[in-house]
Amino acid sequence: MKAEIISIGTELLLGQLINTNAAYLAEKLAQLGIDVYYQSTVGDNPKRLSFLLKQAFRRSEIIITTGGLGPTVDDITVATIAKTFKCKLIFNEEILSRIEAHFKKRGLKTPPSNKRQAYVPENSHILENSIGTAPGFILDKDKKFIVALPGPPLELKPMFEKKIIPFLKDKTKTKEIIFSKTLKLTGLCESEIAESIKDLLESKPPLTVGIYAHPAEIDLKITAKAKNKKEALRKIAKIEKIIKSRLPNYVFGKDKETLEEVVGKFLAKNKKTLAVAESCTGGLIANRLTNISGSSQYFVLGIVAYSNQEKIKLLKVPEKILEKYGAVSKEVAEIMAKNVRKIAKVDIGLGVTGIAGPKGGSYQKPVGLVYIALSTEDKTMVQEFRFIGDRLDIKLKTSQAALEMVRKRLLNTKTK
Amino acid sequence: MKAEIISIGTELLLGQLINTNAAYLAEKLAQLGIDVYYQSTVGDNPKRLSFLLKQAFRRSEIIITTGGLGPTVDDITVATIAKTFKCKLIFNEEILSRIEAHFKKRGLKTPPSNKRQAYVPENSHILENSIGTAPGFILDKDKKFIVALPGPPLELKPMFEKKIIPFLKDKTKTKEIIFSKTLKLTGLCESEIAESIKDLLESKPPLTVGIYAHPAEIDLKITAKAKNKKEALRKIAKIEKIIKSRLPNYVFGKDKETLEEVVGKFLAKNKKTLAVAESCTGGLIANRLTNISGSSQYFVLGIVAYSNQEKIKLLKVPEKILEKYGAVSKEVAEIMAKNVRKIAKVDIGLGVTGIAGPKGGSYQKPVGLVYIALSTEDKTMVQEFRFIGDRLDIKLKTSQAALEMVRKRLLNTKTK
Repeated sequence: MKAEIISIGTELLLGQLINTNAAYLAEKLAQLGIDVYYQSTVGDNPKRLSFLLKQAFRRSEIIITTGGLGPTVDDITVATIAKTFKCKLIFNEEILSRIEAHFKKRGLKTPPSNKRQAYVPENSHILENSIGTAPGFILDKDKKFIVALPGPPLELKPMFEKKIIPFLKDKTKTKEIIFSKTLKLTGLCESEIAESIKDLLESKPPLTVGIYAHPAEIDLKITAKAKNKKEALRKIAKIEKIIKSRLPNYVFGKDKETLEEVVGKFLAKNKKTLAVAESCTGGLIANRLTNISGSSQYFVLGIVAYSNQEKIKLLKVPEKILEKYGAVSKEVAEIMAKNVRKIAKVDIGLGVTGIAGPKGGSYQKPVGLVYIALSTEDKTMVQEFRFIGDRLDIKLKTSQAALEMVRKRLLNTKTK
Repeated sequence: MKAEIISIGTELLLGQLINTNAAYLAEKLAQLGIDVYYQSTVGDNPKRLSFLLKQAFRRSEIIITTGGLGPTVDDITVATIAKTFKCKLIFNEEILSRIEAHFKKRGLKTPPSNKRQAYVPENSHILENSIGTAPGFILDKDKKFIVALPGPPLELKPMFEKKIIPFLKDKTKTKEIIFSKTLKLTGLCESEIAESIKDLLESKPPLTVGIYAHPAEIDLKITAKAKNKKEALRKIAKIEKIIKSRLPNYVFGKDKETLEEVVGKFLAKNKKTLAVAESCTGGLIANRLTNISGSSQYFVLGIVAYSNQEKIKLLKVPEKILEKYGAVSKEVAEIMAKNVRKIAKVDIGLGVTGIAGPKGGSYQKPVGLVYIALSTEDKTMVQEFRFIGDRLDIKLKTSQAALEMVRKRLLNTKTK
């Protein structure tokens, strides 16, 4: 079964609104095992919408439209669907009374324009709107289905989940489902990863692997088509094992997990505490760590020593070391890590210094040069990085590398 | 002149990624007076992409594709465009050396797969990628143009702005342009703002005002259609003046300006320095301030005192005060602000304490209760807030309110 999504609205076409509905619907349809090959966006224009509806009707069994169900003259979806598929528009008393109740509840009279929303294509199945006034509908035409949903995500989502998912499940009973799992990696670039799993990236459905690069993270999405969830998960597990054996320790999490979440779990589990002395990341590492609920269990202190003066005064970096090696040096990173650990009396201290740019770089110390030190009672280690990107990229990549150093350290502790 | 946007990528089709590029491009094209009637999304499938390319070529003068220019076998855009429009693919030495330089800069060898990216359609105009390895290109075919851009927004945007906008300006002799200006407000909720500019929100083209709510910010977008930029700006200025007179001091910035940027400019201009003592925001305020290039000029120190112990030791909050009033209290916020100002020897100290949740709330001190204090040499003031939302919302809203307090204070200093 193939579906097609048509998003209707001039505000989408003019770029005044980002189309989140299409992604939402596509993901849900994929989970139901329904293929989506095309998504289209069109303005509030009957002729062009009608063209898209006809085209979609030729190549897909399900057409889902979003938007254009409102009360204003711009809202052309209902009339255009009726005209395109040669249905009469009929006035529905029940819808009108629901709209009137909606306004009455708010102590308002129903504006005349909203009465337009009570017209629906004849013989269509009405979908009640639990949030707004615009009803949706399903029109059955030659055993294909046109599903019209309202544009606002707050109205669309409950309607889709309560009405359309059960409807589609019923229509696609014997069909296969699609299930995915994303592995999240850091510390390697896209092409390095692609190189080592080239064969997997070339695999074709029912079992595929996609690679998606983010500024400091690579996602590998394993997607399996199968008769049921259990079989899909079994197929996915097989591929996951291969990926993890080829890229040992680079997979830090799965699906929506963030690195700070994974690091937080490790810290909590191992009952370790952490403090951070930041320079170039300017508080980003502390911020990411404290985005996790319960982080006060392990995160104790963050010092953003943005000036040399504060590095000397608060973090006790000797002035001589700063003069000799400069603020961006492995020596300073080490002392920052060691001293923040001692100040906060924690198990792990992180020290980060670098040049986030765009200014402040030199030939010997270019923008993107970063030192990250990790200090525990038994040793202090430091790593040099050379990141590329704008200021925010470099901050993000530095924070990612620092968190990854903590994760790797805790991983080693565990296996000891 | 009509343009059409084709977004390429299975991750878009499966809803794993929200298509922000289409909105970005559509907005820019509208500003150039170029009509966009259709946007389409298709997966990494040569046959279906080719179908869309041919269809777009029939009805539009400019086709812009995004995505599918990467080094992997999934990336089919270049080959499909070449095949559809019957061009040879040729190997471009200059692109290869740029790709090799890109990897060399990072101390890496060029992976074999990246060499694929040096193949481009014959006679196409190459668009250098300043961030990644994938070059874009413009293909001129029967006086229509196929523009291929990389998928990652960080690569697409600079390429579009530096190369495509000048190219399109040259090709179009526009009759009417659409121009917009966004005013950014904070400190009021959407309905308060909507109420006071109700008449403006109801205005129709050629001059409209849209309202867009974000977690800690409301955008008012003024859009004017006019013969030229000057006329559009004149129309917009008139509306801007009305909005500012009705909502005095709530407009903190315009277009893409962030509050940290505006606060930074004020601090730099007034030669004031700032230090921050954070608890519930966990480094977010320091992080936002240091996102701005040049912030080391005014931002000196951030202390994230996540535990009471650190509030006592580093920020010298008396233990008795913590016991008597609790960590989340106006008394503690005041001392944090005052002491961080003194420790860092700066003009302005901020102290922030609150309950970000989801745990840690009580009947008397619910999740979302936040105290923000601002201390200067002559006085320390504190404000209580009760924010609603999840942990990240509350952190964000708190950081916004804290920065806004700094802005308002500097605004008053200036007008004195």
